Amino acid sequence: MSLLDATIKTIAPQNPASRAQAMERLNQLLMPHWALGRLLDLAADLAGMTGQAVPPITRKTIITMAGDHGVVAEGVSKFPQEVTPQMVAGFASGKAGVNVLAKLNGVKVVVVDMGVVGDLSSLVAAGKIISKKIAPGTQNMAQGPAMTREQAIRSLEAGIDVVNTLAHEVDVFGTGDMGIGNTTPSAAIASVLTGQTPAQVTGRGTGLDDAQLAHKVTVIERSLSINQPNPKDGLDVLAKVGGFEIGGIAGVILGAAAKRKPVVVDGFISTAGALIAQSLCPAVTDYIIAAHRSVEPGHRAMQAQLGKEPLLDLNLRLGEGTGAALAMNLVEAAFRVLTEVATFGEAAVSGADK
Amino acid sequence: MSLLDATIKTIAPQNPASRAQAMERLNQLLMPHWALGRLLDLAADLAGMTGQAVPPITRKTIITMAGDHGVVAEGVSKFPQEVTPQMVAGFASGKAGVNVLAKLNGVKVVVVDMGVVGDLSSLVAAGKIISKKIAPGTQNMAQGPAMTREQAIRSLEAGIDVVNTLAHEVDVFGTGDMGIGNTTPSAAIASVLTGQTPAQVTGRGTGLDDAQLAHKVTVIERSLSINQPNPKDGLDVLAKVGGFEIGGIAGVILGAAAKRKPVVVDGFISTAGALIAQSLCPAVTDYIIAAHRSVEPGHRAMQAQLGKEPLLDLNLRLGEGTGAALAMNLVEAAFRVLTEVATFGEAAVSGADK
Repeated sequence: MSLLDATIKTIAPQNPASRAQAMERLNQLLMPHWALGRLLDLAADLAGMTGQAVPPITRKTIITMAGDHGVVAEGVSKFPQEVTPQMVAGFASGKAGVNVLAKLNGVKVVVVDMGVVGDLSSLVAAGKIISKKIAPGTQNMAQGPAMTREQAIRSLEAGIDVVNTLAHEVDVFGTGDMGIGNTTPSAAIASVLTGQTPAQVTGRGTGLDDAQLAHKVTVIERSLSINQPNPKDGLDVLAKVGGFEIGGIAGVILGAAAKRKPVVVDGFISTAGALIAQSLCPAVTDYIIAAHRSVEPGHRAMQAQLGKEPLLDLNLRLGEGTGAALAMNLVEAAFRVLTEVATFGEAAVSGADK
Repeated sequence: MSLLDATIKTIAPQNPASRAQAMERLNQLLMPHWALGRLLDLAADLAGMTGQAVPPITRKTIITMAGDHGVVAEGVSKFPQEVTPQMVAGFASGKAGVNVLAKLNGVKVVVVDMGVVGDLSSLVAAGKIISKKIAPGTQNMAQGPAMTREQAIRSLEAGIDVVNTLAHEVDVFGTGDMGIGNTTPSAAIASVLTGQTPAQVTGRGTGLDDAQLAHKVTVIERSLSINQPNPKDGLDVLAKVGGFEIGGIAGVILGAAAKRKPVVVDGFISTAGALIAQSLCPAVTDYIIAAHRSVEPGHRAMQAQLGKEPLLDLNLRLGEGTGAALAMNLVEAAFRVLTEVATFGEAAVSGADK
């Protein structure tokens, strides 16, 4: 059996017993019933995901997947493609947004080259990034499939493999992305898998004006019309209108779920990866924590499709894993409340009138 | 001149020069323009508040103000009044919600007895809490003023005094509250100062059912009708339908603003304190960061009155300063992004097409 099939087969729903055990404690915490709202919902989820009433939530790692996109030839981004390897070098230097926010919250960042155009071998040799390069960028999806079905499988398995390698030293995973042009394939995936039109789910990315946005929508419409991705087949969608880093992110999410580890899904591009993962294995959503709601207009429909409400809504549109890095603090907060706040009984405080 | 008058006189708007200096750097950060959204807005605010382009945002303290309320005689809370001193003891033991969340984010918690019913002298003697007790609980506002105008001034000045004592060792203040029954005076204040009806701004507090909620609304209506607080005079509102801890919180906010320190305002009760502070000195809002949106229905109108959008919306309704403790992580994140993320120039990365 392939790594992908074996991983999908391993994914089971949350554990109801450990979840119920955590709920029992959460119901007795020294506060009016459920007065910390979504933090307590999250604590119950953590117990259900990990299968442990006292879930281990200490070691946090964000996997930031980088890749390039042939569709940039259509003029869908304000930034030149050379920015992708430059930003990967920025991550390696520790001076980019995700590095700074991850450091604040005690989160490790692992950067993976899934298919960047450009030579990153010196960063790989220096141990600064991992190479899982499938190819130097995808093909232009406005003219044909972005990748082969075999490359799509390889990108998913690369994400699974990174998780499997790190799993012994990570309690919670997060996702992140880098890739000039990658809001375009993400919007295409969103359109196919949510049923919304390209115009409904396409946004300004790094800052397109009205005419550029309209052009981006037509490029996505053309890509869908030429490729006819099958909405019932996530692998077909990934291959035809996806990206290597998006496949890698989907793989990370599948891999984390198979290991019963929570995975904090970052913004628009990461959520496109989550939709691919959900299409391949619906139970994977039991392990997903939605970090934040992006400025990109399609994000709401995508999160609704996953059945997830995001933790934060701060007008972020950077990617990299920055939203996941911020949300990690709330994940850790949920864990701390579950494990460190006293119960009414322990504190000998009077309860409410019934 | 009184401490209150002198403090109000000191409060000036944000510094436009330091704000502009910070904006210049924020505009050049290694990311699409303003791609970290509200985190960058917050970073600019921090520079404007502190009057420093590189604002010091390291030492964080939440001041949790506790007090009791005569109006509990009307049956407006599910919990007995004895819970107020029990929870103060809980804070002193470090096992309550605010302690755990503050510890996670490197925040100190200072607990102040502003007017708790019960003897807390052993906690004061042990240095676990500060006593600024005005009186053992307010009077029942459904029968007359909650306190005298002189007590209202003393409660405000107690908050200012706590800030003045701590200011040399604190970069950012936060507020918190404890007091059985205190959503009732807070809703009364909200009604007077936002112009909404008691029914519009009153919520279930620690968990009232429909009949209990309806009763709470009538108690607030009666309190307003008997006392006729003057909406143009925050001191009159505080005296007639406020609370000692609410006055203390308003004092903390005024004191922080006078010292040019940001103040992270917690939930419903803290926002009632902020409305009193705004009524006494409109410029104080330049220093307020709204931590979160409470489940209490009046909170939205109160934050609109302050002109503030909250950072978090997690269905919290605990108070204590728990929302402020969570939001402190975002405040620190804004500071870190401003000071630690490279600019395009520093990182030698290509910019966007113009």
